[in-house]
Amino acid sequence: MSKAVQTAVMGVTGYAGAELARLLVRHPRLKGATPVFLGRAEASRDAKVPTLGEIHPHLHDSHGTGNLPVEPFSFELMEDLGVEVLFLATPHELSRELVPQARKRGIRVIDLSGAWRLEAGENRAVYRFEDEGSADALQMQAEAVYGMPELHRAAIHGAGLVANPGCYATSVILALKPLVQAGLVEVEHGIIADAKSGVSGAGKAPTAKTHYMYAADNLSAYGVFGHRHTGELLEQLELPADGIIFTPHLLPIPRGILSTIYVRFREEMTSAAIEACYARFYAHSPMVRLYGTTLPQIQQSVRTNYCDIGFQLAKDGRRAVIVSCLDNLLKGAAGQAVQNLNVMYGWAEAEGLE
Amino acid sequence: MSKAVQTAVMGVTGYAGAELARLLVRHPRLKGATPVFLGRAEASRDAKVPTLGEIHPHLHDSHGTGNLPVEPFSFELMEDLGVEVLFLATPHELSRELVPQARKRGIRVIDLSGAWRLEAGENRAVYRFEDEGSADALQMQAEAVYGMPELHRAAIHGAGLVANPGCYATSVILALKPLVQAGLVEVEHGIIADAKSGVSGAGKAPTAKTHYMYAADNLSAYGVFGHRHTGELLEQLELPADGIIFTPHLLPIPRGILSTIYVRFREEMTSAAIEACYARFYAHSPMVRLYGTTLPQIQQSVRTNYCDIGFQLAKDGRRAVIVSCLDNLLKGAAGQAVQNLNVMYGWAEAEGLE
Amino acid sequence: MSKAVQTAVMGVTGYAGAELARLLVRHPRLKGATPVFLGRAEASRDAKVPTLGEIHPHLHDSHGTGNLPVEPFSFELMEDLGVEVLFLATPHELSRELVPQARKRGIRVIDLSGAWRLEAGENRAVYRFEDEGSADALQMQAEAVYGMPELHRAAIHGAGLVANPGCYATSVILALKPLVQAGLVEVEHGIIADAKSGVSGAGKAPTAKTHYMYAADNLSAYGVFGHRHTGELLEQLELPADGIIFTPHLLPIPRGILSTIYVRFREEMTSAAIEACYARFYAHSPMVRLYGTTLPQIQQSVRTNYCDIGFQLAKDGRRAVIVSCLDNLLKGAAGQAVQNLNVMYGWAEAEGLE
Amino acid sequence: MSKAVQTAVMGVTGYAGAELARLLVRHPRLKGATPVFLGRAEASRDAKVPTLGEIHPHLHDSHGTGNLPVEPFSFELMEDLGVEVLFLATPHELSRELVPQARKRGIRVIDLSGAWRLEAGENRAVYRFEDEGSADALQMQAEAVYGMPELHRAAIHGAGLVANPGCYATSVILALKPLVQAGLVEVEHGIIADAKSGVSGAGKAPTAKTHYMYAADNLSAYGVFGHRHTGELLEQLELPADGIIFTPHLLPIPRGILSTIYVRFREEMTSAAIEACYARFYAHSPMVRLYGTTLPQIQQSVRTNYCDIGFQLAKDGRRAVIVSCLDNLLKGAAGQAVQNLNVMYGWAEAEGLE
Repeated sequence: MSKAVQTAVMGVTGYAGAELARLLVRHPRLKGATPVFLGRAEASRDAKVPTLGEIHPHLHDSHGTGNLPVEPFSFELMEDLGVEVLFLATPHELSRELVPQARKRGIRVIDLSGAWRLEAGENRAVYRFEDEGSADALQMQAEAVYGMPELHRAAIHGAGLVANPGCYATSVILALKPLVQAGLVEVEHGIIADAKSGVSGAGKAPTAKTHYMYAADNLSAYGVFGHRHTGELLEQLELPADGIIFTPHLLPIPRGILSTIYVRFREEMTSAAIEACYARFYAHSPMVRLYGTTLPQIQQSVRTNYCDIGFQLAKDGRRAVIVSCLDNLLKGAAGQAVQNLNVMYGWAEAEGLE
Repeated sequence: MSKAVQTAVMGVTGYAGAELARLLVRHPRLKGATPVFLGRAEASRDAKVPTLGEIHPHLHDSHGTGNLPVEPFSFELMEDLGVEVLFLATPHELSRELVPQARKRGIRVIDLSGAWRLEAGENRAVYRFEDEGSADALQMQAEAVYGMPELHRAAIHGAGLVANPGCYATSVILALKPLVQAGLVEVEHGIIADAKSGVSGAGKAPTAKTHYMYAADNLSAYGVFGHRHTGELLEQLELPADGIIFTPHLLPIPRGILSTIYVRFREEMTSAAIEACYARFYAHSPMVRLYGTTLPQIQQSVRTNYCDIGFQLAKDGRRAVIVSCLDNLLKGAAGQAVQNLNVMYGWAEAEGLE
Repeated sequence: MSKAVQTAVMGVTGYAGAELARLLVRHPRLKGATPVFLGRAEASRDAKVPTLGEIHPHLHDSHGTGNLPVEPFSFELMEDLGVEVLFLATPHELSRELVPQARKRGIRVIDLSGAWRLEAGENRAVYRFEDEGSADALQMQAEAVYGMPELHRAAIHGAGLVANPGCYATSVILALKPLVQAGLVEVEHGIIADAKSGVSGAGKAPTAKTHYMYAADNLSAYGVFGHRHTGELLEQLELPADGIIFTPHLLPIPRGILSTIYVRFREEMTSAAIEACYARFYAHSPMVRLYGTTLPQIQQSVRTNYCDIGFQLAKDGRRAVIVSCLDNLLKGAAGQAVQNLNVMYGWAEAEGLE
Repeated sequence: MSKAVQTAVMGVTGYAGAELARLLVRHPRLKGATPVFLGRAEASRDAKVPTLGEIHPHLHDSHGTGNLPVEPFSFELMEDLGVEVLFLATPHELSRELVPQARKRGIRVIDLSGAWRLEAGENRAVYRFEDEGSADALQMQAEAVYGMPELHRAAIHGAGLVANPGCYATSVILALKPLVQAGLVEVEHGIIADAKSGVSGAGKAPTAKTHYMYAADNLSAYGVFGHRHTGELLEQLELPADGIIFTPHLLPIPRGILSTIYVRFREEMTSAAIEACYARFYAHSPMVRLYGTTLPQIQQSVRTNYCDIGFQLAKDGRRAVIVSCLDNLLKGAAGQAVQNLNVMYGWAEAEGLE
């Protein structure tokens, strides 16, 4: 048996980082090499490092994950331990900084931030990256593969830098790609993606919007005509700039995304034809579950790495409502990152994800 | 001062009936005549009648509403008491039965069910009314006024039968009517109304879908391309049959509706022009709050009779996202019923509603 | 008719302050004099002052409360306007500072903080007041009346400084006082008060504990053997230091407190005798609702100023479980403050509270 | 390697049954023999049997558990398949009926209902079993072992009938047993167990109490001085009939139990001594996590099979508050049932549970 792959995770204090830690520790292919968990380097290396269980009490256990230390970030430590793959669950600014350094050292990176997902400058503009246009940035952008295995399996397999997709973007792209690529959708008409996400999508920082009193018993739309994930939709679906309206909403639930998507078809369709189009596209994609004309619900995909897709066709055969659900922390973040790891190493795509 | 108007409410066991009871008991114009509460007639008139507080513990109080009896339904009782206005918070089948009888006795009716809201037979089909086409039914349909004061104030003032609008319908119609009536919306393009409602909208009967475990931490779409309120949208907005796609969702909150509505304009618009259009239309409508380009949230209208409306315009000036919020039990049901009562008697429209 | 009483509220940015603003604006006895809302004085007096609706969007309305300005705190302004009563919905440190100044100017104060509730130094210790023992502090402590009308009606009527009780304390004291004062409870045995509160009790500041992800789908105990409200229980119930164990819990709901209280009786009791004891004590207290042997639930008192009390007696007649519910922002804070105002001016105790 | 153990589960339609199905399908020791799922026998054997995924959409998947059939209950089928262990996730009446039949056929049974948990007739009285006193019932009662491995590991290993404990009972017994058995607790003083459970504990049937509108934003106590689990507490902790007051509450969360337990010690204790007592008792119990003087929270044990225990000691060293948390569907039901299976077969106690 070959040597186990040594992985590291930078940024385990957030929700996605915690999920990633949980998944990697239990991953059957990584049994021989405990993942290394890394946090901000500010803490002196002499100071007592916290354990994962101290940071995330729900990962506390008598004998496993919870006792693993969270070391200050250091390329030296990674070199010493022979880290092959580095996961970044960090803010995008930090990913812009760390990725070029990691690549120079030959470490493969799976970056969960929005730092390297976008090809077109006008789509990246919303992030206001400070290193925009630098040699490092240009090279990384050229190298980065959009980490959605269902669309880019082969490229991910050989990739040095995988840009793990946004949670909303995953739910909308997977629902639309088969139909759009088959040329069925009248894209000139415009697509509507009305998406709703649980509060974990808003991050762990306590803010006015993540306060229980704001989120509970409420629903609010935000980022209308300007959410960062819009660029991913445009690029991956190859849509014109006004080809889709994407409206996120904050749901009073901990986790889960449901996107309700409205398309017009070029020609009259049947439900069977639509089902067949999806089935063909996802024939070899174990992490997409097709519901046919039944509509999935958030509860069914939460705590799984599945993206669930169903639809309903209008009587005229020209208009459809597509509903797509996933867990924003799994298929929308940490789970998809592990799926990408599996693809990079040629393992079964669902390993460690069920 | 003139004699107080005697009112009665049939069907106080449900959520809308309870809100109605609460509002009528406290209504300043009804002080001289305690509203009569009525329930199913099956119970023998000799049996001890329950009090409102026994049916709705939250209406329990030491000295007021909670002690009022809920009498078995009876036209004789209403006649004895001189009931002028009967509110029906009953299933639509029962409203179809009771309304013609009430009208023959000269009682004015505000019906909260879907029984008399629709003019066109094809829109009514979804209800499968047993008396469809009967003389009584035809007469009631002719007489019924759609009870949305912002659209039909004058007709409501003189009406014998007011068909109180559906909760979803209220939120969508109020958001769209000013723009559609002004001819600004490209209706041929199709409008999308993606609506989300709290669980009280699903009624008080314990069912698989109202079970806490189904609704909590979940979101689900339902009634796609076939919800009963669609007919109200088509008729009140005068749209062609395929002019709007209306998709309701079940939100994990007790009450409140948020509708996210997508329209295309015939010509390039400015936000100011849209604001002006709304302001003109609702200049004399105290129960609509205009948020301009700020988007309202569910929490802000819950437990009020307001419908809150805001919007965002795309840079191209041709596409807009409109967000409309209201409390499904108040502006979406009992509150609007009281608003209609106020209009019928020429009282200030917001009386008893603040 | 006499001149309207001019009131002011300092600290309207928090949840209790917002409720207070809402109640005072609608209070029938205050119609002639709009309450003055005050906030931190840091903002220059020249700067545009925010409106209440800007601070609390749910108080936004087209024509009322929402448009009222929130002025920087100033005794001069209060003097100019003839403020008679000042409500303080401020942190206790600030109340310690402002109250002596207000009293010197002859303004009557209703303080919602914990600054002046406690008589015994050992109970105050947990607050670590900086001015402990100063002349001003001693005088204010001597003057302060514990603002629970059901216990101290007469003293509140004439009081210059009313220390509005803590939310938990209100729920526990009202449930126990009648039984303890009648000598029925075996206090040496020890009383247990297991209390649960909604998240608004934790304040408006975004913290790790008020984050939706922490509070939702969770329950946690805190402040065991050390919560600040314990001193209020000891003093108002005249218990020895170890006479009660009070354990608060954070409930995943926006508002409401339920306290489950365990007592042992000196002698065998009947339910009827217990009911009679409560009925006697609260005969003239309109804001306490007695449920007898039915147990109240949080939903029934939320958004009311009632404290609901019920109990169950063990077969041995010696042990009882008492359940007491109230809304932490109303009877537990702003509502009780208004009730105290009513008592101070000799108005009906429930005025403006129904 | 020995032949795989063939298991069957009767009653997979409920929440505990669904969890059991999920756990058994993934259990590493059961890989060679797919568990058999059984439902009510009423359905004709010819009729198409439903799949697990049809009954529980969240168990829907493309390739696994969801496609397993749910056969009508039949001992013949079990005999044909060589079922060794039958899990009953059935109402207690049905368990009383099926268990004697299964035992006569030599099938080992793990019964999740309350049918066989209690030894003393006075504790069983609350269930009103129809077969009380019959020869079968007496024999089964004699044979039944209370299925809490932490207390009865050896007896469970050889048991033919394991009575899986109640969810509340598990949380209270595990928190108290070490201290009570060591003689530290002054049981004559009386113990208080104030317990709070999520809604899944109330079962899958839609009722007025499981309606979202009843449970959400609410908290209610129930079953005071009469809950069925009380007998388990008395027997397993060997307490006198009035030795404990157990008060359950319905929490607005899907799953999880938190019990706040109040004890008085015979002598002055230190926290260290209490910690040592727990540590000794649970030294070989992998499914109990000891938090020392930190208090566990519901979120930390939900979706695990752990029971988390922490405590706080009063300054007098005589009174303690113990907090115990678990997932009512796992350690409180299906997880503990699998733990019992592991003990019965001498496998590692935590297998298939992490």
